[in-house]
Amino acid sequence: MEKLRAIARQVSNWGRWGADDELGTLNFITPEVVQRAGRCIRRGAVFSLGLRFEAGGPQIGSVGRVNPIHLMSAIDAGVGSDPQGFRYNDDFITMPLQCATQWDGLAHVQYGGQLYNGYPISSVTSAGASRNSIDKIGTGVISRGVLLDVARVKRVARLAPGVVITPADLDAAERQSGLAIGSGDVVLLRTGHLGVFKQDGDRQGYMTKEPGLGVDCAPWLHAREVAALAADTMAIEVIPFEDPKLPLPFHMVAIRDMGLTLGEMFDLDELAEDCARDGVYDFLFCAPPLKITGAVGSPLNPLAVK
Amino acid sequence: MEKLRAIARQVSNWGRWGADDELGTLNFITPEVVQRAGRCIRRGAVFSLGLRFEAGGPQIGSVGRVNPIHLMSAIDAGVGSDPQGFRYNDDFITMPLQCATQWDGLAHVQYGGQLYNGYPISSVTSAGASRNSIDKIGTGVISRGVLLDVARVKRVARLAPGVVITPADLDAAERQSGLAIGSGDVVLLRTGHLGVFKQDGDRQGYMTKEPGLGVDCAPWLHAREVAALAADTMAIEVIPFEDPKLPLPFHMVAIRDMGLTLGEMFDLDELAEDCARDGVYDFLFCAPPLKITGAVGSPLNPLAVK
Amino acid sequence: MEKLRAIARQVSNWGRWGADDELGTLNFITPEVVQRAGRCIRRGAVFSLGLRFEAGGPQIGSVGRVNPIHLMSAIDAGVGSDPQGFRYNDDFITMPLQCATQWDGLAHVQYGGQLYNGYPISSVTSAGASRNSIDKIGTGVISRGVLLDVARVKRVARLAPGVVITPADLDAAERQSGLAIGSGDVVLLRTGHLGVFKQDGDRQGYMTKEPGLGVDCAPWLHAREVAALAADTMAIEVIPFEDPKLPLPFHMVAIRDMGLTLGEMFDLDELAEDCARDGVYDFLFCAPPLKITGAVGSPLNPLAVK
Amino acid sequence: MEKLRAIARQVSNWGRWGADDELGTLNFITPEVVQRAGRCIRRGAVFSLGLRFEAGGPQIGSVGRVNPIHLMSAIDAGVGSDPQGFRYNDDFITMPLQCATQWDGLAHVQYGGQLYNGYPISSVTSAGASRNSIDKIGTGVISRGVLLDVARVKRVARLAPGVVITPADLDAAERQSGLAIGSGDVVLLRTGHLGVFKQDGDRQGYMTKEPGLGVDCAPWLHAREVAALAADTMAIEVIPFEDPKLPLPFHMVAIRDMGLTLGEMFDLDELAEDCARDGVYDFLFCAPPLKITGAVGSPLNPLAVK
Repeated sequence: MEKLRAIARQVSNWGRWGADDELGTLNFITPEVVQRAGRCIRRGAVFSLGLRFEAGGPQIGSVGRVNPIHLMSAIDAGVGSDPQGFRYNDDFITMPLQCATQWDGLAHVQYGGQLYNGYPISSVTSAGASRNSIDKIGTGVISRGVLLDVARVKRVARLAPGVVITPADLDAAERQSGLAIGSGDVVLLRTGHLGVFKQDGDRQGYMTKEPGLGVDCAPWLHAREVAALAADTMAIEVIPFEDPKLPLPFHMVAIRDMGLTLGEMFDLDELAEDCARDGVYDFLFCAPPLKITGAVGSPLNPLAVK
Repeated sequence: MEKLRAIARQVSNWGRWGADDELGTLNFITPEVVQRAGRCIRRGAVFSLGLRFEAGGPQIGSVGRVNPIHLMSAIDAGVGSDPQGFRYNDDFITMPLQCATQWDGLAHVQYGGQLYNGYPISSVTSAGASRNSIDKIGTGVISRGVLLDVARVKRVARLAPGVVITPADLDAAERQSGLAIGSGDVVLLRTGHLGVFKQDGDRQGYMTKEPGLGVDCAPWLHAREVAALAADTMAIEVIPFEDPKLPLPFHMVAIRDMGLTLGEMFDLDELAEDCARDGVYDFLFCAPPLKITGAVGSPLNPLAVK
Repeated sequence: MEKLRAIARQVSNWGRWGADDELGTLNFITPEVVQRAGRCIRRGAVFSLGLRFEAGGPQIGSVGRVNPIHLMSAIDAGVGSDPQGFRYNDDFITMPLQCATQWDGLAHVQYGGQLYNGYPISSVTSAGASRNSIDKIGTGVISRGVLLDVARVKRVARLAPGVVITPADLDAAERQSGLAIGSGDVVLLRTGHLGVFKQDGDRQGYMTKEPGLGVDCAPWLHAREVAALAADTMAIEVIPFEDPKLPLPFHMVAIRDMGLTLGEMFDLDELAEDCARDGVYDFLFCAPPLKITGAVGSPLNPLAVK
Repeated sequence: MEKLRAIARQVSNWGRWGADDELGTLNFITPEVVQRAGRCIRRGAVFSLGLRFEAGGPQIGSVGRVNPIHLMSAIDAGVGSDPQGFRYNDDFITMPLQCATQWDGLAHVQYGGQLYNGYPISSVTSAGASRNSIDKIGTGVISRGVLLDVARVKRVARLAPGVVITPADLDAAERQSGLAIGSGDVVLLRTGHLGVFKQDGDRQGYMTKEPGLGVDCAPWLHAREVAALAADTMAIEVIPFEDPKLPLPFHMVAIRDMGLTLGEMFDLDELAEDCARDGVYDFLFCAPPLKITGAVGSPLNPLAVK
């Protein structure tokens, strides 16, 4: 915990964008950054990084998270009396906002009684989050994305569950990308873990253990002024945790101290294939959250455009 | 109905992209179109075109559509035993997929027993739509967007509910934009109707009457090979209907015959202000649907980037 | 507030059935009381006192309560390959637990930081109520019911909204019933308010004002050792409140101090007709709550059997 | 299938209570039957036969059935400005109507294009069941209940999954009860299967195989004019099915031909213990369904009173 506190102090962005800030590192996405993102559209190739939302999704019910329930509210229903006229179908969804590909908003995690930028935990009630909620980042997240394909760099289909990704691993992946990650970039981290799940369908295997970032990676991301970070795992960070008595340390410092919006369960395989093929690892990245008032996360279908 | 059938024949795209096509006019979005969209990012200004999803939304319960129900499933819940450790909040949503800003997918509307491209209505069951569902358009919709600000061209804050927008009105708005709408563009149509609702909060007023397209506009859109069309109203087309005995004729030909994905309840006011200010009416448009398997629509937070 | 505190002290049942009690006045339902209830079945006439659960219910969205959302999850779905074989339909519901005819459980209301029997408010979290929850009263509520038809005693179709029902009114209704309300009885209070709603369908009228008990009735109920109390209104007590600065005072002392389970939106009209006809005002009353773990209320279809 | 058709003809009640009937065998519950039920209340002992509704329930997601999702919509929320005043908690549920202890209504099953009493399958749409729906049996089910404790008669804790219960087994259990099952009685069938699940928590074991009735038992129930039938299994009938090519034959004839309302996942163990102890196997049985308009089933908390 002492080490974690030191990292937290090092990477803290509290007050950096004012006492009222609720965007955190998304503030790094300036108009110039968006212009740079636009220039990454070269071939016009579009990749969807989102999982399907369906009963067969990855959830196993832990912490109350279930897979989406999609139900039809109208099937071939009519308006008016002409049997040859207009007919329609309609539908509903019930789902946890974090059941598949999603953003963890800045109201998702706290410790020591405070959320990002010092807001008290009392700002989250049964009415939702009055601070740092996902609807506050309505114009985001659109920026340049950079793929760090750690699995490919390490020449494995998947980093084994429990393997810790270190700053040196990130350095190596950055080198392999041929790019310098800069202020406002969105980093997409591929471990191969989701690719295995897509093949074996083993939900327990996907959800209960995973390769992922060690907490030492937080300063690496902080130094580069990364705007948002996403991975193909359900928690980005390594599970089992580095210190079994300290669960989810990366979430703690990334979300609460840095104000870093985190993306989970991103499907990066097709994009990674393409990047390996043409050697181009950056792209326009676009993943606007649903503006659900007071929500702490949002389901997504992120796009990458090369 | 005879006139409608004639228009339907004129604008039909059935078979145009093969007997198995489920994308319709989104096929017009080629890599070249996406490249053109990328070049529209000039200043790096981002506009969110989505409404908030909340209990206070526009729905009045008609055809079973209610406003979203957002509930917290975890508030300051812990993992592990350390009171200073990780704490989190989690949430759920229950909502109609078409309760606020949204895509009408190609499985939303049928008539004469068939959906777009001739699929039988039996392809939609209580298990969802097996054809033309929203998850089929996973990499869309990203393209160049063009704003047709009909309200501004007509120098009104809002076209009165019941006013029919004609092809001549679209011509005038296109001229005012200074652009030629081309194959693959997404057209955003502003009537001012949503702006009034945002001010007066009159749900009945917003949902039961609206200015909108007459059915004669379908050939206009067909000729220009528009990829998708969205408006700031809940149905795009005029209500009350042009022929009271023929409800929702534009939906019929646009979705079922053309295969045109429709966007509804888009908030275009801030974007329109900006376009009027700098005289630039095109932009990168990005609105990826959630890939809900078998769904007939998707909630959205569309972005426009200038 | 001083008066309310005095009443609270007078009617308090904290500790009466032990420090661990979570049943409150339902403890009055002894085996002898249940035997007495059984003897009330004379003619074998059964009355359903529950409203329908449907989109057209009374809710207007206040405090987040909406009407039930009932959706089909299977329509004519098959099992096995024989087209002449088994086919089925299945369905879901999403609803507030207090959207129509319902019990307010003892975890529904608190003040001064405590629930019934002194449990702290911290016993209710996003995981539900760990104390006093509705699943704790699984074998209830079955007892003798007695109808107090205040509307009939006052010779009105409905007591006007805002009219305060007093202990004298209860005395008069008890006299009219010809019965002595005894320990363990369930009292059903008819004001006529629901009957008006069933005719005029005016949700605002039904939900925002109502005739009902004044707080002085709490000692009356306490003295008789009533086990549970239900009415044909949505709050049992008078609205507008007797003291506008002190909302819902009867709920406060009844639920939190007495431990009295309250039933709301009971449809008593058909039963009342029958009681007026044969002059018999008692019956077996049976309204078991769904045992939803940690819930603070339960939807109901109560039965009365004469 | 030929044998099944013969049984179907033998037990059919179509038309027996008129062409408009939607109650089926519940018609057997006459006022006299209810009087007889009342006389079964002897000691005043009440037994709850319902499972808890909770995330930890028996569902495994098959045919889209999930366990209930219970969420708090208000926690310690206030009304008015006084911090010492009224505070409340509120909650929602989302659940399949048949996820735990429940009635299968007569709109749940069809074959040959028809529901009970000849109604066409087209009477069930995305708007619900317009015929035979659960809200039609609002005053039921209250009657005399009789426990047939087949497990105890066979001197086993549980009949092994796959074991077929025969008419001879029912005869033996009826003899052991010392009662003659008569017109209008509700039969509760105990196999011990749920008791094992309550101990081992093996959802797959509980849900995918079970001991249960063979289809030959339908005439036995028909002859006795049983009003409703419930068991401690999730399907009442034996699984694997007697004929692997003919799934759920008992459901077919019981629900669709007899019009027999079926109760599933009833927790009969505590009641059975009591019956074995005092040798009294009948009781007042009360299990009113929620009157969900158009629903095909209802969650329950059935009571037995001895």
